[in-house]
Amino acid sequence: MSRTLWIDTEGTLRTIDQTLLPFERREVALRTPGECELAIREMLVRGAPLIGAVGAYGLALALREDASDAALWRAFERLAAARPTAVNLRWALERVRDRVAGAAPAQRAALAWDEAGRICDDDVACNAVIGEHGARLLRALPRPGADVLNLLTHCNAGRLATIDHGTALAPIYRLHADGVRVHVWVDETRPRNQGAAITAWELAERGVPHTVIADNAGGLLMMQGRVDAVIVGCDRVAANGDVANKVGTYLKALAARDNGVPFYVACPVSTIDPLTPDGAAIPIEERAAREVTHLAGALDDGSRACVRVVPEGSPVANPAFDVTPARLVTALLTEHGACDASAAGVRAVLEARPS
Amino acid sequence: MSRTLWIDTEGTLRTIDQTLLPFERREVALRTPGECELAIREMLVRGAPLIGAVGAYGLALALREDASDAALWRAFERLAAARPTAVNLRWALERVRDRVAGAAPAQRAALAWDEAGRICDDDVACNAVIGEHGARLLRALPRPGADVLNLLTHCNAGRLATIDHGTALAPIYRLHADGVRVHVWVDETRPRNQGAAITAWELAERGVPHTVIADNAGGLLMMQGRVDAVIVGCDRVAANGDVANKVGTYLKALAARDNGVPFYVACPVSTIDPLTPDGAAIPIEERAAREVTHLAGALDDGSRACVRVVPEGSPVANPAFDVTPARLVTALLTEHGACDASAAGVRAVLEARPS
Repeated sequence: MSRTLWIDTEGTLRTIDQTLLPFERREVALRTPGECELAIREMLVRGAPLIGAVGAYGLALALREDASDAALWRAFERLAAARPTAVNLRWALERVRDRVAGAAPAQRAALAWDEAGRICDDDVACNAVIGEHGARLLRALPRPGADVLNLLTHCNAGRLATIDHGTALAPIYRLHADGVRVHVWVDETRPRNQGAAITAWELAERGVPHTVIADNAGGLLMMQGRVDAVIVGCDRVAANGDVANKVGTYLKALAARDNGVPFYVACPVSTIDPLTPDGAAIPIEERAAREVTHLAGALDDGSRACVRVVPEGSPVANPAFDVTPARLVTALLTEHGACDASAAGVRAVLEARPS
Repeated sequence: MSRTLWIDTEGTLRTIDQTLLPFERREVALRTPGECELAIREMLVRGAPLIGAVGAYGLALALREDASDAALWRAFERLAAARPTAVNLRWALERVRDRVAGAAPAQRAALAWDEAGRICDDDVACNAVIGEHGARLLRALPRPGADVLNLLTHCNAGRLATIDHGTALAPIYRLHADGVRVHVWVDETRPRNQGAAITAWELAERGVPHTVIADNAGGLLMMQGRVDAVIVGCDRVAANGDVANKVGTYLKALAARDNGVPFYVACPVSTIDPLTPDGAAIPIEERAAREVTHLAGALDDGSRACVRVVPEGSPVANPAFDVTPARLVTALLTEHGACDASAAGVRAVLEARPS
């Protein structure tokens, strides 16, 4: 099974605990709405599309316990609050709610479970199409440095951020499968190291050449002409094309612009929130200080340990996302095709049919 | 003794092993030129001014062993190669070499030792003046956010990067001593975490309010209006005003420019290299992959441990510096005063007398 979220033979929802990657691939069962909520909040699952799907299943599981309108409303709000920045979570919850709202309580849990499955299927199909569009666009880019296409990505917008294929990594997997020589600069993505821990792990698993770098290094690499394009995922696109993504994305977009490097944002249209006028209106999640003060990893004997890297008593701030202004984005890559990061572009792509 | 490099009562050169900060303050003796070279290469000491001073003492120690011209030349080249990017190391070695070159071999070691001491004294005096100039400039800045002056710094250009006072932190210590309410955003500065480990530690030691952040966070903070100025040190200023500093500096300079935040580079004039025409000509040191793949810190019981954070088998690149183009620098702060980061500005400040 290559999906990141699946139903096992006993009918139990299962996923991979991403907090243990890259050192251990441990599957976990999600049996209750509370377990789904915790998995989202504690980032056992992360990535806007995947947390949407887990939220959808969480709502279905809640309806198994109590299918009343009141319970539906409570579970919806509780799951929606697990992570505030990505809009896909709320979008997926609304999709399930709308599917069951008119049904009799006795049917609701089954309908919701079915809808969550459809959300997953749709995600896989959507990302495959993003991969096709993106690959076509990327393979046409000039590669002044070499025969190899050098891409840079931040955080993880790969298979493990979605149900399969990924968003930003979907075109890369497509190119690699098509025999295009591609190499990925992987930002480690402090403080949670999703790049070093997850992106590197999944690229290695698929045999895609890559190099892990500190988040600080990307500007120099672009200045040296060693990056042909930057491609990232995102957590929310505002109506004007501003993009919220993992903190640090904005800095890479600035460097891309300063060096004439195209900057692409891969996003299913479910990531576009026409109700958010611009980036300033996107809530930025502040996460625990411990994500900055401590780092988990593997000791030489393979056992896991967590070390403190900031002196005790030094305060810490930990915003998890930042906003990249639309003017710095070369194009949004959706399952409806590529579009300008602008009010007109966003409107057009929302109205377009999947292509 | 508040200096970071000193001669103890037995005449032995001593410093602090900065690789153990912030969890342990261990003093080490530097008794041979090889120990000085190793301390520089392995970054027991770091910061352009401090490695210059340690290099100078290393040359003096080499001359104690063999004061011939050939030995002088060999030791000079060996120490100069310990770290390639900062120009202060070569500058300090040249200062010692020029002092002893015309002297009889029997006098050389003593003269060199004396010159190394002068380099240290000059550094302390120079940084105090940079502190005065910088404080005057910073206290005049508008503070739209609050009564507090919010500064952001990258890496460590503090006391521990110099003999005392620091370069970028000198104005901050000056303002703090003068009773100006100042708060410092401290970039953790991956991969070696000099910000989290050293800057936070020395600011805490002096009671300066500060907050540690991931390197990725600075762009968001500037966009949110929470940074009144960025101030960093540097390792080499080219003749055109381009600045080499710890990797990631360029990204902060871009964010500062994009948000109208002034970006200052504090540097003794010894950091200016008129023989390097521009940033592209500055050699960028590539350091060991292990700095990215592994992180040292403290376990809960206080013992030290090193954890791997990158999957085995994933390649790593680790450039230690980047170049900030002169156009992004608001001003260079030297002991000769502030100047434009431009060919004319650099020329003028080199010709100026200390003020």
